[in-house]
Amino acid sequence: MSNEIVITTYDWVPEMPRGFVRDLRLRWALEEAGLPYRVESVSFRDRGDEHFARQPFGQVPWLTDGNETVFESGAMLLYVGERSPALMPNDPRGRSEVIQWLFAALNSVEMASLPWSLYKFTGDTEETPGRKLMDRFLASRLQRMDAVLSDRDWLAGDFSIADIAMADVLRLVDRFDGLAEHPAARDYVQRATARPAFKKAHADQMAHFAAAD
Amino acid sequence: MSNEIVITTYDWVPEMPRGFVRDLRLRWALEEAGLPYRVESVSFRDRGDEHFARQPFGQVPWLTDGNETVFESGAMLLYVGERSPALMPNDPRGRSEVIQWLFAALNSVEMASLPWSLYKFTGDTEETPGRKLMDRFLASRLQRMDAVLSDRDWLAGDFSIADIAMADVLRLVDRFDGLAEHPAARDYVQRATARPAFKKAHADQMAHFAAAD
Repeated sequence: MSNEIVITTYDWVPEMPRGFVRDLRLRWALEEAGLPYRVESVSFRDRGDEHFARQPFGQVPWLTDGNETVFESGAMLLYVGERSPALMPNDPRGRSEVIQWLFAALNSVEMASLPWSLYKFTGDTEETPGRKLMDRFLASRLQRMDAVLSDRDWLAGDFSIADIAMADVLRLVDRFDGLAEHPAARDYVQRATARPAFKKAHADQMAHFAAAD
Repeated sequence: MSNEIVITTYDWVPEMPRGFVRDLRLRWALEEAGLPYRVESVSFRDRGDEHFARQPFGQVPWLTDGNETVFESGAMLLYVGERSPALMPNDPRGRSEVIQWLFAALNSVEMASLPWSLYKFTGDTEETPGRKLMDRFLASRLQRMDAVLSDRDWLAGDFSIADIAMADVLRLVDRFDGLAEHPAARDYVQRATARPAFKKAHADQMAHFAAAD
């Protein structure tokens, strides 16, 4: 039970995704929780059977805690949240609220925002019918998040794993200037990323990948 | 504790999404669990403040159980899974596996498949750079799911809430013929949708929306 948690991430990634690789969500959570952890690396260029056995999509990160392995950033955040009252309350009602917003970040908002970011990444500006529908999909989600965030600091009471997920999701939208018309969402990202735990997690990820250049 | 669970869904939807509205995931889970429930309706055309208070994105469904309300299909599946050994094991290891695959369905696969489906829905066939990247994103996820499903019937031991989520996600891909090159994934969808609980949930949803025509 007193195992040190291990985060496994890539040994290196190109410049573009640095600061946005999902081990950041886990580093951030563990920093907030004050739980001891260390970071190990797996090859970005050569992903072998052992990698796919731990992370079935060949992605990162995964978490190891003694004999237990966990993949999917949502599942890992829940795993850490269940071990830290700083990240999720123990009472059933509070816990349920956090879990709802955790899924909202990953399935209602990121499902719209990540595809939008992939378009931005390619520089594609063609307004085809599908693209227009995707843009409207994201706009509707951001409009609602802006309304929600205009009257609260954090999604479900105190800061929680739901905020780590949602702020990280919205942060990538902000990177491509997608929050310009959504000031409450932009303020929320700034509030979240001003936390010392985020700053340390972010700096550590940047240093980790830079060390392999 | 012996409250009857209530699923709230739209009173009516257009033809296209019928059979795919997300109350199906919840109906399916409750049928598998053998838990009593009833279905209530909210207006599709007029979504008021009370709707947004229950479901912050103005979507459906949400679940009500006494004083508790839950939104997000992932959170609702977890809620039902925690109340039924038929949908999630009680032991920590088994539970963790199910939760990882539940998040995988919603955040690794559906994040790629739903945007692809939106394109199919619009009939957009323009191969722009962003579109090509989106298509590759889905292809990589399906290729991996096909590999995973080629050696097991269900994702995490026995049938679970993770299979409800994953099969429903892949079912929408199959509708647009996206599983033609992924026979194990297609077989999995057939296996899942052959279950009596799915058939009843699907028939009930179709009847619910047809009744409002």
